[in-house]
Amino acid sequence: MLDTIIYAISITSFGMRALVIGRFQPFHLGHMALIKYILRSADDVVVCIGSAQYSHTFDNPFTAGERHLMISRALEAEGIHNYYLVPIEDINVYSLWVAHVEAMVPPFDVIYTNNPLNIRLFKERGYEVKETPIYDKEKYSGRKIRELMINDGPWEERVPYEVARTINEIDGVNRLKQIVKTDEE
Amino acid sequence: MLDTIIYAISITSFGMRALVIGRFQPFHLGHMALIKYILRSADDVVVCIGSAQYSHTFDNPFTAGERHLMISRALEAEGIHNYYLVPIEDINVYSLWVAHVEAMVPPFDVIYTNNPLNIRLFKERGYEVKETPIYDKEKYSGRKIRELMINDGPWEERVPYEVARTINEIDGVNRLKQIVKTDEE
Amino acid sequence: MLDTIIYAISITSFGMRALVIGRFQPFHLGHMALIKYILRSADDVVVCIGSAQYSHTFDNPFTAGERHLMISRALEAEGIHNYYLVPIEDINVYSLWVAHVEAMVPPFDVIYTNNPLNIRLFKERGYEVKETPIYDKEKYSGRKIRELMINDGPWEERVPYEVARTINEIDGVNRLKQIVKTDEE
Amino acid sequence: MLDTIIYAISITSFGMRALVIGRFQPFHLGHMALIKYILRSADDVVVCIGSAQYSHTFDNPFTAGERHLMISRALEAEGIHNYYLVPIEDINVYSLWVAHVEAMVPPFDVIYTNNPLNIRLFKERGYEVKETPIYDKEKYSGRKIRELMINDGPWEERVPYEVARTINEIDGVNRLKQIVKTDEE
Amino acid sequence: MLDTIIYAISITSFGMRALVIGRFQPFHLGHMALIKYILRSADDVVVCIGSAQYSHTFDNPFTAGERHLMISRALEAEGIHNYYLVPIEDINVYSLWVAHVEAMVPPFDVIYTNNPLNIRLFKERGYEVKETPIYDKEKYSGRKIRELMINDGPWEERVPYEVARTINEIDGVNRLKQIVKTDEE
Amino acid sequence: MLDTIIYAISITSFGMRALVIGRFQPFHLGHMALIKYILRSADDVVVCIGSAQYSHTFDNPFTAGERHLMISRALEAEGIHNYYLVPIEDINVYSLWVAHVEAMVPPFDVIYTNNPLNIRLFKERGYEVKETPIYDKEKYSGRKIRELMINDGPWEERVPYEVARTINEIDGVNRLKQIVKTDEE
Repeated sequence: MLDTIIYAISITSFGMRALVIGRFQPFHLGHMALIKYILRSADDVVVCIGSAQYSHTFDNPFTAGERHLMISRALEAEGIHNYYLVPIEDINVYSLWVAHVEAMVPPFDVIYTNNPLNIRLFKERGYEVKETPIYDKEKYSGRKIRELMINDGPWEERVPYEVARTINEIDGVNRLKQIVKTDEE
Repeated sequence: MLDTIIYAISITSFGMRALVIGRFQPFHLGHMALIKYILRSADDVVVCIGSAQYSHTFDNPFTAGERHLMISRALEAEGIHNYYLVPIEDINVYSLWVAHVEAMVPPFDVIYTNNPLNIRLFKERGYEVKETPIYDKEKYSGRKIRELMINDGPWEERVPYEVARTINEIDGVNRLKQIVKTDEE
Repeated sequence: MLDTIIYAISITSFGMRALVIGRFQPFHLGHMALIKYILRSADDVVVCIGSAQYSHTFDNPFTAGERHLMISRALEAEGIHNYYLVPIEDINVYSLWVAHVEAMVPPFDVIYTNNPLNIRLFKERGYEVKETPIYDKEKYSGRKIRELMINDGPWEERVPYEVARTINEIDGVNRLKQIVKTDEE
Repeated sequence: MLDTIIYAISITSFGMRALVIGRFQPFHLGHMALIKYILRSADDVVVCIGSAQYSHTFDNPFTAGERHLMISRALEAEGIHNYYLVPIEDINVYSLWVAHVEAMVPPFDVIYTNNPLNIRLFKERGYEVKETPIYDKEKYSGRKIRELMINDGPWEERVPYEVARTINEIDGVNRLKQIVKTDEE
Repeated sequence: MLDTIIYAISITSFGMRALVIGRFQPFHLGHMALIKYILRSADDVVVCIGSAQYSHTFDNPFTAGERHLMISRALEAEGIHNYYLVPIEDINVYSLWVAHVEAMVPPFDVIYTNNPLNIRLFKERGYEVKETPIYDKEKYSGRKIRELMINDGPWEERVPYEVARTINEIDGVNRLKQIVKTDEE
Repeated sequence: MLDTIIYAISITSFGMRALVIGRFQPFHLGHMALIKYILRSADDVVVCIGSAQYSHTFDNPFTAGERHLMISRALEAEGIHNYYLVPIEDINVYSLWVAHVEAMVPPFDVIYTNNPLNIRLFKERGYEVKETPIYDKEKYSGRKIRELMINDGPWEERVPYEVARTINEIDGVNRLKQIVKTDEE
């Protein structure tokens, strides 16, 4: 009898797959903390690399492939293996957004997001939506970190080591500095 | 009496079909007045639901299907049957815009619009373009009505009864309130 | 008398809206019979004009707008008013198909279709799917009717009068004859 | 009286701009003869490189840029300068095709084509359509020439010298031979 | 002992990342053997799930997300962790294909493919292209396995256990049987 | 004297083809000076008409075809024949941009641009990028010239004669004045 109850509980805690979506420009320590937080209550996590088709702008300097590499390396370095890493191209036809995500990722049970549009869209489709804790938003923000890169600030301490290594490999800081220059035209 | 008969005959003999394009977010009493105004000189009217692919944003909260339902119900409730209701997806390649509209709607003779771009594009294709009267623009404006929705103001009195009924059926006000929340990300 | 009242009540109480999808190249008497059949058990029907973006080919000679006109006229001539006529552009990304339809049409409860792919896609989304009766498929087939048009056969007797009138207005038969000519290139 | 005749002649010789569309895979001596034929009655000619987005297939081995180069060189080598060379991407939404062409090319007065679909589409838009003479279709056909390339046949004698030079520069024959190999998958 | 050390060093010093592209409809034992073969000479492998946008057809029954799940589970069950699994949507504009792949995946040094078009396209961009060995093509072919599914044949023995488990979880065989039924329309 | 000969030979022997991209809304005397400057060190120049799909807005009033005509006429009037004029549609997926340009134009050796994004993208692909001199930017700017058009200022003196002639032929100034009117809707 007790076995049955425990088994039921364990099933609940076992079967759960969570989804999280970010642009990860770049993947930083706040993202890492979020994934660890999610994995405390989910068996595995689908990490969607959003705006996958964009790159070479201030908002989206890195390609989906470069982000794939930095996130994968960072998670593996932390001993995290129970994740699915999936690029997702933006579509701004929001009535199709949830179906688009569903087609590209393994089936999932819950989505973690604080984005009001995603909250609404996934709830309208019947999904459980959970808010995410916020990790020192002033410090762990993609925009802030990109600004530090441009101004030769201490950006590397705000991202996992493997992310910094990857960005340096691809000459990412110089790319960012170049593309934000005011167009002379 | 004779005048009325002649007037009726002349309208019939014109065989005139008019076109009007709007986003109808939502369809309001100003739109209703406009359609009645057009039908005084046209046999039937093509009502294009513009920006048909968009939904779930402040500017375009309702889907094309939801707008189709609210407009159809409102016109039928007024005893208006001589209309064609056609969703049109935006294309921002303006050189194709008129051909795109022509392909999606029944042939038409005149377009009613105050939009300078539409005026130019349809005139360049040889269409007759007529300006539309304005019905208390301060009051009957989609944006104003959406703002009233968000602020629990008296939006329902500015739209046909059937429009309000439809929006309430689909939980439209809560959707709007949710999606305009500042993104916490 | 009592039967009629009960019948009327039951229809009203169903509140049932049905969906049917076709290319309607052209809309023929089999389509008309199908819509009447559906309206015996549904309150209103959403008629989707599929492959809306295509025209000027043997399979899809008429534009969405031309089809809108012929279907609307034919239904109105039969005294049918409780329909929503909606063009739907094809997308061959089937994982998005149901969401695409849902966005473009009023909410519906049941879909009538014999197409295996549609049966599967709408069932996977949780919809009730009903098979449609077949009305002398040899005779009432779009392809057969188009072949009659090309060969100066008696196509007009297989479509509603208003459909024939519309096709003649737009010089549809000559268009079809022209575009099927073997390309000399 | 004489003035009128001269005026009519001068109008004919002055204002006329002709359009011709081809895929030019590759541009061959039949195409060259056609352009010379057109320029006998037109002041200048717009040469559209159709299916511009395609390349690296048997039907479309060469990119739009490679075709631009071979055609431009061949016409210049013949002393022909009064042409506009414009790549046009295919769209299979035929209701937009003429508007698409109109947007991409200088205004034109007449189109030369034997393609039944183009004949119909341009006539429906009110253009004058002229048939083109055929230059030994067995010999001067893109498909035939591509087959000669694959089988090491005498393809070079069927194209202008500059076309052969360009194809050799870009290693075009080997590309064609490679991409037509049966896929082992 | 010395051999082992040298072998370990040589792998490390290669720093070689390989790319392989497939549709994996479904992922079978031939694919598994191929990946193991590649990992004998590469440090890690990028596995691209091609035609990612397609599903629900005989050629492409499973979504990209379903394929992601089956491949990931199968590789992990074999103790393979040094892979990057990336869905890639088809584009049939082949001049953009290599750039499209490059944007979506981590940087790679070599591609394994027997597909003549891929061989040509990647070679034109300067990549090293290696042919892949063939593993009993009669038996380990996606098409053959899908035919077995439809005919209740022994498909499960031709795929990794985790693939069969995943397909059964998503009711994949019934989907396939349903969508290949002859369309009655 | 000897210097001149050697200089002439070296230019010829370079076989250098340069690329320049602009929107040319409209083509002005600064553009003309730039092309002449480039042709002092290149054998021929590819002139890309960027944002080719756009028209009928303040930023992009003229179609690609209209711009093709004005540029071609202006260059020919200056006796410049060694150019390739190619419309290029914008894609905002920057990882594909260089491959897209490469597919649409003849092979080129160097690109002239001051645009930081283009500088970065073409350098990442290995191209030589050269900065362009600036020709009285206050005066020779597309935006300034369009503002002059709207305000009946002396725009014609800032463009080649053939450009002014073309714009007047197509009623371009009135188009611009019309489309910038504040939308009354």
